[in-house]
Amino acid sequence: MNELFKKRLDFIIEADKMKNIQRQTLLADSSRRENDAEHTFHFALAAMTFFDHCVIPGVDINRVVRMALVHDLVEIYAGDTYCYDVAASETQEEREKEAADKVFGMLPPEQGAEYLALWEEFDRRDTPDSKYAAAIDRIQPFINNTLTEGHTWKLGGVSVAQVYKRMAPIKEATPDLWEYVEENIKAAVEKGWIKP
Amino acid sequence: MNELFKKRLDFIIEADKMKNIQRQTLLADSSRRENDAEHTFHFALAAMTFFDHCVIPGVDINRVVRMALVHDLVEIYAGDTYCYDVAASETQEEREKEAADKVFGMLPPEQGAEYLALWEEFDRRDTPDSKYAAAIDRIQPFINNTLTEGHTWKLGGVSVAQVYKRMAPIKEATPDLWEYVEENIKAAVEKGWIKP
Repeated sequence: MNELFKKRLDFIIEADKMKNIQRQTLLADSSRRENDAEHTFHFALAAMTFFDHCVIPGVDINRVVRMALVHDLVEIYAGDTYCYDVAASETQEEREKEAADKVFGMLPPEQGAEYLALWEEFDRRDTPDSKYAAAIDRIQPFINNTLTEGHTWKLGGVSVAQVYKRMAPIKEATPDLWEYVEENIKAAVEKGWIKP
Repeated sequence: MNELFKKRLDFIIEADKMKNIQRQTLLADSSRRENDAEHTFHFALAAMTFFDHCVIPGVDINRVVRMALVHDLVEIYAGDTYCYDVAASETQEEREKEAADKVFGMLPPEQGAEYLALWEEFDRRDTPDSKYAAAIDRIQPFINNTLTEGHTWKLGGVSVAQVYKRMAPIKEATPDLWEYVEENIKAAVEKGWIKP
């Protein structure tokens, strides 16, 4: 078998495990938790769909979509870190760095380096592409949270200050979406889903 | 709320239903059937990852990834049609056309027309982009099928001629992958997963 194809095949088989990595977010119909593969699909489609609302100059939407497709692969080994879990967040960087070397190391070196660089850029949030990607990575679970009675906010006893901090990339990248976010944060506080 | 954003938001909320559309294909660990959101993620990532093996001239990988992300949205209303179900395939075109108008009609007109055109092109398989997309749409469940004792082949009592016909786009687009396909079809026939 073609040696390069074999490496890529093993990587694609490994990526199947994304379908078993559970996130805290529920599906919009509240029937169950979503997994990383589902989140990635939804994130990539939303990045394409909301792109007209992005005000950051110089964003390459094609790179953002590629970034979306690889952004959570490290969780195959590092697991999903609940974004409001302070203790888990402390070890997240180390766990994910190790996982990144492992999963992207399965690929032919050049391609592995490309995917690793995309993931690192996503993680740093210091470029136009990664800033827009961060906004969409946050709006997707935000939408599902507003549709499921604030499930993950209630789960973590999250405060309004924490939610505003977490959602800040949306304000910078896509002000049209921010109005919706702000309105729904206020409503969630009123309903007791988010602590004042 | 910004009117264009509202339409896109409703579309993205509707797309959440992809997580509940079950396919016949099992996860690689055989634990359960995969859904359309998971298949779409896996297809888009595989399209990026195997692109070096594509021999069709003029393929735009970024368009292929966009095509992958929208290619199964019609199944929110039309359901997943098992590819070896002859009776269901007869009504598939009509059901999916109606579903396409409904789901892409939720978007602002220009964007809805773009997504509809991508889906129609995918469905026709008459351009370089859609030919490569068809190859990857077939290799993803093929890989999972070989890892799950030929689950969907056994389910439909499928013959080797049917599998070769279904997998033909892989041969044309990505000969490096064809060797793997042919080898595994032969092995599946020997094991009795595919009828001779």
